[in-house]
Amino acid sequence: HWTPRLNSHHVSPHLLDLLPAKNGEEPTIQFLLEIVDILTNYVKKTFDRSTKVLDFHHPHQLLEGMEGFNLELSDQPESLEQILVDCRDTLKYGVRTGHPRFFNQLSSGLDIIGLAGEWLTSTANTNMFTYEIAPVFVLMEQLTLKKMREMIGWAGGEGDGLFSPGGAISNMYSVMMARYKYFPEVKTKGMSAAPRLVLFTSEHVRDTGRVIPADLEAKIIDAKQKGYVPLFVNATAGSTVYGAFDPINEIADICEKYNLWLHVDGAWGGGLLMSRKHRHKLAGVERANSVTWNPHKMMGVPLQCSAILVREKGILAGCNSMCAGYLFQPDKQYDVNYDTGDKAIQCGRHVDIFKFWLMWKAKGTIGFEQHIDKCLDLSQYLYNKIKNREGYQMVFDGVPQHTNVCFWYIPPSLRSMPDSEERREKLHRVAPKIKAMMMESGTTMVGYQPQGKNVNFFRMVVSNLAVTQSDIDFLIDEIERLGQDL
Amino acid sequence: HWTPRLNSHHVSPHLLDLLPAKNGEEPTIQFLLEIVDILTNYVKKTFDRSTKVLDFHHPHQLLEGMEGFNLELSDQPESLEQILVDCRDTLKYGVRTGHPRFFNQLSSGLDIIGLAGEWLTSTANTNMFTYEIAPVFVLMEQLTLKKMREMIGWAGGEGDGLFSPGGAISNMYSVMMARYKYFPEVKTKGMSAAPRLVLFTSEHVRDTGRVIPADLEAKIIDAKQKGYVPLFVNATAGSTVYGAFDPINEIADICEKYNLWLHVDGAWGGGLLMSRKHRHKLAGVERANSVTWNPHKMMGVPLQCSAILVREKGILAGCNSMCAGYLFQPDKQYDVNYDTGDKAIQCGRHVDIFKFWLMWKAKGTIGFEQHIDKCLDLSQYLYNKIKNREGYQMVFDGVPQHTNVCFWYIPPSLRSMPDSEERREKLHRVAPKIKAMMMESGTTMVGYQPQGKNVNFFRMVVSNLAVTQSDIDFLIDEIERLGQDL
Repeated sequence: HWTPRLNSHHVSPHLLDLLPAKNGEEPTIQFLLEIVDILTNYVKKTFDRSTKVLDFHHPHQLLEGMEGFNLELSDQPESLEQILVDCRDTLKYGVRTGHPRFFNQLSSGLDIIGLAGEWLTSTANTNMFTYEIAPVFVLMEQLTLKKMREMIGWAGGEGDGLFSPGGAISNMYSVMMARYKYFPEVKTKGMSAAPRLVLFTSEHVRDTGRVIPADLEAKIIDAKQKGYVPLFVNATAGSTVYGAFDPINEIADICEKYNLWLHVDGAWGGGLLMSRKHRHKLAGVERANSVTWNPHKMMGVPLQCSAILVREKGILAGCNSMCAGYLFQPDKQYDVNYDTGDKAIQCGRHVDIFKFWLMWKAKGTIGFEQHIDKCLDLSQYLYNKIKNREGYQMVFDGVPQHTNVCFWYIPPSLRSMPDSEERREKLHRVAPKIKAMMMESGTTMVGYQPQGKNVNFFRMVVSNLAVTQSDIDFLIDEIERLGQDL
Repeated sequence: HWTPRLNSHHVSPHLLDLLPAKNGEEPTIQFLLEIVDILTNYVKKTFDRSTKVLDFHHPHQLLEGMEGFNLELSDQPESLEQILVDCRDTLKYGVRTGHPRFFNQLSSGLDIIGLAGEWLTSTANTNMFTYEIAPVFVLMEQLTLKKMREMIGWAGGEGDGLFSPGGAISNMYSVMMARYKYFPEVKTKGMSAAPRLVLFTSEHVRDTGRVIPADLEAKIIDAKQKGYVPLFVNATAGSTVYGAFDPINEIADICEKYNLWLHVDGAWGGGLLMSRKHRHKLAGVERANSVTWNPHKMMGVPLQCSAILVREKGILAGCNSMCAGYLFQPDKQYDVNYDTGDKAIQCGRHVDIFKFWLMWKAKGTIGFEQHIDKCLDLSQYLYNKIKNREGYQMVFDGVPQHTNVCFWYIPPSLRSMPDSEERREKLHRVAPKIKAMMMESGTTMVGYQPQGKNVNFFRMVVSNLAVTQSDIDFLIDEIERLGQDL
């Protein structure tokens, strides 16, 4: 039960009394401290394993209003006390993605330094448009991107890059740069200035989900014979479901042979570059023309934090700059090469760099390495635990390359049933049923999906440094508890 | 001078000791409270007019390290004390975009409720991918978008929409939807499946920067005669420099006549829909097929917060959904229509809704109306103050439609000089010189730019509720102080 802790003579009833803060400094700061109290309590509980991961309700239940939690907006303002209650309720009915037993997404965890970085970023409330309004953040972005390019292996960390709102948009940048590199006239004349371009990315996969180089080459030749123009190959470094790494060196050979742009989508797997033990899985990445790498996935940086990195200098600006004099003035008193906004397809751009920069300062490169190595060790622990355990079947053979462990849980009722369409249909329904029960009991969350001819299976991933072996054990116990009678 | 306030026996030297918080709860919370202390001090000073807007340094100065502020990243971790110092320095050398005398960008101000909303959002650290992991935020997005569609005037608030990372990306969604509406085969067959499409947006403008409908129609006819296919017209509601509103009803007539998609880019001007006094400037917006509206601009919501709204239901999903079974499972226990992620071009999507929803709760619709009306009143105050003042010349005639007031300051040395190329060149250099001096003295910031044949002029905008008439007076005094001897 919520008790107002503000002294009533300090509390302004409405938002408008908070501003300007100079005339209402005390209530403003009091209100922020009340919010911080709510948030620090949430942080404490998030890491407490006796707290549930979520308190599940259906959409119609939340829309009808839970214990007075009213989502509807109105013409009239609410009191600050009610705003505090709304904040508590928002957290109460949400999902604790930082909980050590939340394994549902590639992004998880709640890094305290990253969190502090986000709080500071929102307090600074500026944008990455120009050096003029974001001098420190613009420089942090440049220095951090250079470090990332060094990790990729580009000589001297040379090249260019940007932080973008996510992996899909980073990948879009790579396609735009490739098109500009080979057909720059598209920028001014449109797509009709280019021939029919073809992009290649993995869909046909072998058992582990990796691209087959010979198959890729055959498809390139086939496209050319049909009169199309192959432009771009995407090599996935850490696929979403299997965590598979495409063989970059073999693909790079093909790209060189046919003069194609090589992009490495390391949104999920890029973080492994920080680990001396695991970076070999991206061998050849230095041969890529561009790389997507999302620190908000494997490296535990709060959302959003995704980088597009490119080897050739100048191409990012060449591709995207509009040289709009009304946005970027050349006659400023400082070096306007630091006005990076014209490289972006966005005008305003959120400051995604600071939390990452601050985490790197706080952990050092070796801290990220420890993070990566620990998460991969935990996945190996899970793999070893279940690979020969009764009631489990792995989706693909061999040790996982990333933290992805894909498996079926086979309830006792299906264990002796011979393979058949009926059994497959039954097995297909097992993971969704267990997942629904997990969510309703609120104890843990893990993803499932079908893939190709494989019926629904669990995909376990670990990217949260707070996870321990006991949490892995808990997940397996929970699957067995919920699934034994299916 | 910074004094460590953490008790040394509570302080862990490094980040790794903060996690998991369960075992290091005290230092974790202590660290967060230290951060909050830094941030609340920053908030207080931001609203204190005796504080500078910025403490300007050139890029090379910051890169060399100011008083020990080292931007470089290293292999080894830093102590938590140093992290706190880094946070202070980051704010110290940044720009106070919430300061009542910062007028440099369309986004300004520091709304305390919005700030609290961002702090909560980053603590929740989830993404808008599915109802499963963001149940409350997904519903808030739906309800808020519906309210925005009601403000636009679409019957019953029907339609669809999304929050995107910014106005440029919202506008891109509109182009993609228009293309899908008329040429759906582009989704599967590529651009070669469509004819040569033409988009229209204002470049040829009259004095106030508004589109001339007859000119638009002539250009559409011309494009058709050349064999192109007109697809899309963008009507700008609040242009960046002049704050001009295109005549939407007249443009809508033309779009209906030629069967074109009408998009209204209200990134800057959309906020005026909240004001009964000013919404007539967007008359006809309900006839648009899609609307971009950035609450992070005129409505003072922290960055990033931009919405794309569309009148026709189903087209957003139709255009963007990939139905990837590995991302969106149809066999969940809840109504998966709430899994909005498949409508977006992104996979992970930052939670931009909460701060806006919380501000709407706290202010009510009438609070936003007061915000809009106050900012436009202040611009009118500026306009009235300088329109006949010696040494000022307005860039366009008449009362500004938005908060944009565009003007030249003419130093005494140029006032009696007859119009000539020499005078124009001299005048062109005035605004950059004054701006550079403003930044170096740190007292205020306002934007300038050339536009078409107009040499550099100042563009004043107001979107921060903390601004008062005295701040407008200050700006004019400061321009005259810095510019009188030029």
